[in-house]
Amino acid sequence: RYGLMEEENQIGAATGLAYTSAGGDILSIEVSLAKGKGKLTLTGKLGDVMKESAQAAFSYIRSRADELKIDPNFHENFDIHIHVPEGATPKDGPSAGITMATALVSALTGRPVRKEVGMTGEITLRGRVLPIGGLKEKSLSAHRAGITTIIIPADNEKDLEDIPESVREQLTFIPVDHLDKVLQYALLEENNESK
Amino acid sequence: RYGLMEEENQIGAATGLAYTSAGGDILSIEVSLAKGKGKLTLTGKLGDVMKESAQAAFSYIRSRADELKIDPNFHENFDIHIHVPEGATPKDGPSAGITMATALVSALTGRPVRKEVGMTGEITLRGRVLPIGGLKEKSLSAHRAGITTIIIPADNEKDLEDIPESVREQLTFIPVDHLDKVLQYALLEENNESK
Amino acid sequence: RYGLMEEENQIGAATGLAYTSAGGDILSIEVSLAKGKGKLTLTGKLGDVMKESAQAAFSYIRSRADELKIDPNFHENFDIHIHVPEGATPKDGPSAGITMATALVSALTGRPVRKEVGMTGEITLRGRVLPIGGLKEKSLSAHRAGITTIIIPADNEKDLEDIPESVREQLTFIPVDHLDKVLQYALLEENNESK
Amino acid sequence: RYGLMEEENQIGAATGLAYTSAGGDILSIEVSLAKGKGKLTLTGKLGDVMKESAQAAFSYIRSRADELKIDPNFHENFDIHIHVPEGATPKDGPSAGITMATALVSALTGRPVRKEVGMTGEITLRGRVLPIGGLKEKSLSAHRAGITTIIIPADNEKDLEDIPESVREQLTFIPVDHLDKVLQYALLEENNESK
Amino acid sequence: RYGLMEEENQIGAATGLAYTSAGGDILSIEVSLAKGKGKLTLTGKLGDVMKESAQAAFSYIRSRADELKIDPNFHENFDIHIHVPEGATPKDGPSAGITMATALVSALTGRPVRKEVGMTGEITLRGRVLPIGGLKEKSLSAHRAGITTIIIPADNEKDLEDIPESVREQLTFIPVDHLDKVLQYALLEENNESK
Amino acid sequence: RYGLMEEENQIGAATGLAYTSAGGDILSIEVSLAKGKGKLTLTGKLGDVMKESAQAAFSYIRSRADELKIDPNFHENFDIHIHVPEGATPKDGPSAGITMATALVSALTGRPVRKEVGMTGEITLRGRVLPIGGLKEKSLSAHRAGITTIIIPADNEKDLEDIPESVREQLTFIPVDHLDKVLQYALLEENNESK
Ligand SMILES: [Ca+2]
Ligand SMILES: [Ca+2]
Ligand SMILES: [Ca+2]
Ligand SMILES: [Ca+2]
Ligand SMILES: [Ca+2]
Ligand SMILES: [Ca+2]
Ligand SMILES: [Ca+2]
Ligand SMILES: [Ca+2]
Ligand SMILES: [Ca+2]
Ligand SMILES: [Ca+2]
Ligand SMILES: [Ca+2]
Ligand SMILES: [Ca+2]
Repeated sequence: RYGLMEEENQIGAATGLAYTSAGGDILSIEVSLAKGKGKLTLTGKLGDVMKESAQAAFSYIRSRADELKIDPNFHENFDIHIHVPEGATPKDGPSAGITMATALVSALTGRPVRKEVGMTGEITLRGRVLPIGGLKEKSLSAHRAGITTIIIPADNEKDLEDIPESVREQLTFIPVDHLDKVLQYALLEENNESK
Repeated sequence: RYGLMEEENQIGAATGLAYTSAGGDILSIEVSLAKGKGKLTLTGKLGDVMKESAQAAFSYIRSRADELKIDPNFHENFDIHIHVPEGATPKDGPSAGITMATALVSALTGRPVRKEVGMTGEITLRGRVLPIGGLKEKSLSAHRAGITTIIIPADNEKDLEDIPESVREQLTFIPVDHLDKVLQYALLEENNESK
Repeated sequence: RYGLMEEENQIGAATGLAYTSAGGDILSIEVSLAKGKGKLTLTGKLGDVMKESAQAAFSYIRSRADELKIDPNFHENFDIHIHVPEGATPKDGPSAGITMATALVSALTGRPVRKEVGMTGEITLRGRVLPIGGLKEKSLSAHRAGITTIIIPADNEKDLEDIPESVREQLTFIPVDHLDKVLQYALLEENNESK
Repeated sequence: RYGLMEEENQIGAATGLAYTSAGGDILSIEVSLAKGKGKLTLTGKLGDVMKESAQAAFSYIRSRADELKIDPNFHENFDIHIHVPEGATPKDGPSAGITMATALVSALTGRPVRKEVGMTGEITLRGRVLPIGGLKEKSLSAHRAGITTIIIPADNEKDLEDIPESVREQLTFIPVDHLDKVLQYALLEENNESK
Repeated sequence: RYGLMEEENQIGAATGLAYTSAGGDILSIEVSLAKGKGKLTLTGKLGDVMKESAQAAFSYIRSRADELKIDPNFHENFDIHIHVPEGATPKDGPSAGITMATALVSALTGRPVRKEVGMTGEITLRGRVLPIGGLKEKSLSAHRAGITTIIIPADNEKDLEDIPESVREQLTFIPVDHLDKVLQYALLEENNESK
Repeated sequence: RYGLMEEENQIGAATGLAYTSAGGDILSIEVSLAKGKGKLTLTGKLGDVMKESAQAAFSYIRSRADELKIDPNFHENFDIHIHVPEGATPKDGPSAGITMATALVSALTGRPVRKEVGMTGEITLRGRVLPIGGLKEKSLSAHRAGITTIIIPADNEKDLEDIPESVREQLTFIPVDHLDKVLQYALLEENNESK
């Protein structure tokens, strides 16, 4: 089942791009907060690498809470659940790292994620964005889903040439080397919930 | 052994629809609350995907406690046990998500579940209802058990045509895209325990 | 080694019926309480299904503490150990559910279990009693052990015909659909410890 | 390496009898107490059944602390370590149950264990002593180690005939059906540390 | 994908040298601190040996907090996350030990790591530096990445002869037998953040 | 890589003798203490038997804290890490038991371990020293490393004859049956740091 772009800007959910043996697909990363004691739950049949990727995103955000205008004790006051539907489909790899980080920051700040944006990229503990595989397939599936803008790792710019020109022309690619730029682009201001 | 519809509206139990290699069946989802410290126990020979589905249902309810008129600290004051009888039968998959959520809300609010309703659908952290497989077999077994109304994911409406007309005519299908609609339909008001 | 009926009514121990590839046997379910913090220990080479069955019995009792006249905080004030001797024999399946529940209630209330009673049946979180397999073999072994009364799930009444008439005539079968009836029959009043 | 009887009565150590494919042997069960918070550590390459056997012994003693004149809160004030040397040899089965119980009670009460006594028998949560296998081989190895008295389960009396008469005549067998009798026989009074 | 030297001196990140069946590569070790309770998280698809190596580095630093001018309670006041990007690549072995220790000390003291330095060596609990394998391949990849100085275990000096002279001449090798010397060389003073 | 004797008497480190299919070797056992809450960490690719051996050593020391002049609450006030370098080499078996105990006591008392001493022997919870295998190979490697004195289990005295006379003459063997004698011989007084 192919995914479709969100119909409205979402708080606590961002759109990633997946690449499997069956081709590309989009996937939603959902984040739920509830008053709690800092438990981090990861579900959606995620492999170890993808879970570690979520932990890296989480730690980066904790270490940058001040700059991100997040309560520095959020990890003690909330239980955080990251879920990736469709729960029966195995998912793995580090390329959802920046998407998980974006969804987390959105949930913690209340800033909505632009619905027309998809993204792919490994995140490191310092917020760096590392290159990923399958950009062509990911881009095709994002286009099919209605996504118009794709945030990609700067180191993947060289792979844009592999995407058929007809599709490439209809997509805007934003190459980034750090999560700060991802957030700058993908998140709206809190009190500016554009349609 | 084929299940049968509940004889009375139940608090803390809802009827799901299962689909296995052996065909369709109904299954009860039972929820038990006891004063405690927030432990969540999942039993009934449940696979990982089904357990994660329960966690997603649980997190959605926590994050929406206010709207659902549930004590927002319920997860700290109660131990919650979700069990799916028949304990020797392995069960897996995400399609019991909305049933587990419904049984949980019923237990936490005291609102009974309509006994004539069966349901199937994956739930996401945002309460969205995603499509499932085996609708035909599930519907046949629900009908055989005495169920008259089946809540299904909106994205499964296209599969209704696969159900034999003789059965389809005797069933009411309620397509939904969000858990709020499931609860609206399946739960009675607390002080209105219709026979 | 075939078991034998208890010589006296026991507090905290009940007799279940087992059915394995080697035929039927009786088994004791022992419950030990000690002042503690609510730890539940399950031993006796029990399989996962049997352990989950014990958890279901435990949760049902917790949720019904008031009606059962049990201290509602028992699970926080006691450590509870459920053991099934003979420790080297693997045991599994849900059919000891009502036996474990009966032994637990006996230990928690001080009410003795009638020594001449054996029982078999899956328990659900709501205290319902579900049917089990191997009733014939279980009944033969119970009879051989000296048991005179067997509590069975109501849904297994249809299987009584499979038991040889010579044995069946010497046994009393009590079909039940809920644990409350099991307890009503199997437990004596606390201060009425009949020989 | 064949074991030898202890040279002096020991506090916190008792002699069990093992039976493996390689024949019989004696084994020491050692118990160490240290001020702590109730942690129970089991070492000596013990299999699951043997570990569960230790837990059963432990629970029985907790539930009978008063009668055994043991501080009823011992399990909260001490960390308890049960070790079975020779650490590289795998050990399993329930037949060391009464030996572990005896060593535990010895450590907790300060009463020494008679050095000339070996023992074998499964223990249940109620302190019952269940029969074991390999009595012949166990008896021969105990005799070889210098043991003169062997505590055995009452249900194993029938197996004494299998032991060669020359050895049987030099051994005293104490058949028991309950741990209370084991302790009565194997433990000396605290302030009566005979040779 | 071959790594490149950091563009600036980093706080909380150091450059290690890896050696796999595919040849040599450099790898970044990233450390992130956040106010917490002393949890140590290790990610990056690390094998058991590499995780134990991180624990050894961590314990050495804890035991030497005073000399290193680190808050002796740091392990209780911070949660520490050590991550090794690229998250999909399995990594193992003890040779990143001194790199992990260096990144940790950098994060805890705020002293930057010289960007032109790579390092390899097992660390022990006493801070000793033990020899490693693959020095030739590691040195070639470090050179390719722009690294000009490599810290190596003193016991590996004998292996320098295996490195092609053309490369060896362009690299400075610092043989060390203790972590103190690694830190002395690799870390800048806190308030001397050289470009 | 063959080990060498320590160059100076060490506090918190002792030299054990290992015996593998590849022959004998010496190994260092390192112990690190840091203020903490009683966590015991064991690293160095240790097998289960070796880890249990460390636990036995630890429990013996706890139970004898007074006699050993160690703070009886040490296990609550310190986190203790036992590491055996070379981290990539698997290690197992109980024969490092007395070495781990010696290194622990050294770390806890500040008494240095004589650098010229190697040792091998299983430890029990009562501090007894049990025999080990491979004494010949262990002795040869100890001799090669510069060790001049080897502490061995009393029950291994009979195996000394297997060691080539040329080597045996250059080594002093100290047979012991209890850890107290190991410590008496291997540890210097705290304020008597020889050489
Ligand atoms: Ca999809
Ligand atoms: Ca290309
Ligand atoms: Ca069924
Ligand atoms: Ca269709
Ligand atoms: Ca039996
Ligand atoms: Ca029948
Ligand atoms: Ca032996
Ligand atoms: Ca016989
Ligand atoms: Ca690389
Ligand atoms: Ca060389
Ligand atoms: Ca070596
Ligand atoms: Ca010999």
